[in-house]
Amino acid sequence: MKNFADDLARKIAELNNPTVMGLDPRLEYIPEDIRQKWIKDLAPDTELAAACAIYEFNTALIDAVCDIVPAIKPQFAYYEMYGVAGIDTLKKTIAYAKNKGMLVIADAKRNDIGSTATAYAEGIIGETELDDGSRKHMFNADAVTVNGYLGIDGIKPFLDVCARDGKGIFTLVHTSNPSAVDFQDMVLEDGRKVYELMADCVNEWGKELIGEEGFSSVGAVLGATVPEQAVAARKRMPNTFMLVPGYGAQGAGPDAAVASFTKDGKGAIVNASRSLMCAWKKREDLAPSDFARATRDEALDMKAKLNAALKDRKYV
Amino acid sequence: MKNFADDLARKIAELNNPTVMGLDPRLEYIPEDIRQKWIKDLAPDTELAAACAIYEFNTALIDAVCDIVPAIKPQFAYYEMYGVAGIDTLKKTIAYAKNKGMLVIADAKRNDIGSTATAYAEGIIGETELDDGSRKHMFNADAVTVNGYLGIDGIKPFLDVCARDGKGIFTLVHTSNPSAVDFQDMVLEDGRKVYELMADCVNEWGKELIGEEGFSSVGAVLGATVPEQAVAARKRMPNTFMLVPGYGAQGAGPDAAVASFTKDGKGAIVNASRSLMCAWKKREDLAPSDFARATRDEALDMKAKLNAALKDRKYV
Repeated sequence: MKNFADDLARKIAELNNPTVMGLDPRLEYIPEDIRQKWIKDLAPDTELAAACAIYEFNTALIDAVCDIVPAIKPQFAYYEMYGVAGIDTLKKTIAYAKNKGMLVIADAKRNDIGSTATAYAEGIIGETELDDGSRKHMFNADAVTVNGYLGIDGIKPFLDVCARDGKGIFTLVHTSNPSAVDFQDMVLEDGRKVYELMADCVNEWGKELIGEEGFSSVGAVLGATVPEQAVAARKRMPNTFMLVPGYGAQGAGPDAAVASFTKDGKGAIVNASRSLMCAWKKREDLAPSDFARATRDEALDMKAKLNAALKDRKYV
Repeated sequence: MKNFADDLARKIAELNNPTVMGLDPRLEYIPEDIRQKWIKDLAPDTELAAACAIYEFNTALIDAVCDIVPAIKPQFAYYEMYGVAGIDTLKKTIAYAKNKGMLVIADAKRNDIGSTATAYAEGIIGETELDDGSRKHMFNADAVTVNGYLGIDGIKPFLDVCARDGKGIFTLVHTSNPSAVDFQDMVLEDGRKVYELMADCVNEWGKELIGEEGFSSVGAVLGATVPEQAVAARKRMPNTFMLVPGYGAQGAGPDAAVASFTKDGKGAIVNASRSLMCAWKKREDLAPSDFARATRDEALDMKAKLNAALKDRKYV
């Protein structure tokens, strides 16, 4: 039976690289030539020009890394901000990456009551039923990030789609931003921290979706910037697949990024967005038009660093 | 200076109606004739047919209530599930309602780290900067719902847009779904419940955005299904504008729905989605084509019930 955690674990093993490339395409990440070409061709429709520039940039990056990086993580905000044209680019980026053999984690952090969570699950990872009785994929991502503040009601509809279609979710447990601790590290009267309560929920929610590789399709988001919490959370979630943001531009290095991996170095994937997408800006030896090569070089460097950190663990 | 909480308070006072119409348009809420007409005209593009049926339905409902209901609350999930065409309908629905003088609360429950929260804030309530240097409204809602699990980092970018453009946010404090209590009512070691911690955060975040009417543009979502928690939360958030889901189809009656209003019956707005959108299904005296009249009748009934409940408060 198709299981997202199996798909992800096997793809990581095949490429020997636990990296996901975040695609959070701010216009300023894109070389000026590409942006100006689209503005020139499509002005005054600057919204469409932005969406087209992003699509050209995204597909070049996907082409450059699809044989060495297992997955992409497009962040919905950066497409929504370019309106309907931006959402169209999001949909096409997902399809393009899947066609190149990559897995796609939709970073949407959705959360709502049951009926609405069903609509989100259908739209992002499942299928929508239409008026002629057909069911159609809309975004067709392999997995989606969610926020568990509403409890199981808001998660269950996603679990149903995960079970039926072999898809996955990643629930926020501990995020990578500085103020995460102000809420997520508050202590409950039973001694657990808020993020530990969430970790226990995620562990429970995922029990029915553990695949042959030993990991559940109900994953967790666990920031690389808080390695101690990542180690503590892993103990509460032995079978959970971890999505690790915060590497690179957000400040965490490879040692911290692998803190939530299992003892044998599995069950987690580290995200890098800006450090991969903007790699070309740090390369004086390359022209901006070689941006995709810079991203590939950076991805290979990240792969080597993560694998080295996994050989010699600092946080356990 | 333009302030969202002032705009909302004044619109409610003008219409003497603290109701927001939720627009969560599942296809089964729409009369068969409308749905079949669009399928016939647009097949095989069933996705576009769905989006067109929803737009026709939404605009008829807006026409029917815009002189008696102050605001709409479109829930993004129900548009996203129809893909790019659905998002286009969402954008047009927002524009249509604003043009009819209604305020628009985008129910998107966004949450992310600072840089991404900035992108969400720009896209949904602010303006996006484009490559010709122009700034353009994308969805241009008046307010947006957010989830505070990430702490102030994920909220601050919204506050900046609220201050600059007179927009608003509503942060989830206590939601209306059954399992909300499993997380939001957990007790911290300092005696507060998790939702009370969130209430204190919301109260603090909103201090700089209190308008002339005495309410902050940093509002809270406080479910009608938990009136005791609503009363407790109001005490911690004296100046917060409350968005109250859970009335009608979710089970709460008018007494519970007004639990979080201030003593003088202000500072909150009650959402109804299914009970307003599907009012025609309960009317044997009307043809389905009179669906908009059924919604107007239901809205007038809800207005009367809320105002009666405000005269004789059960929860204080």
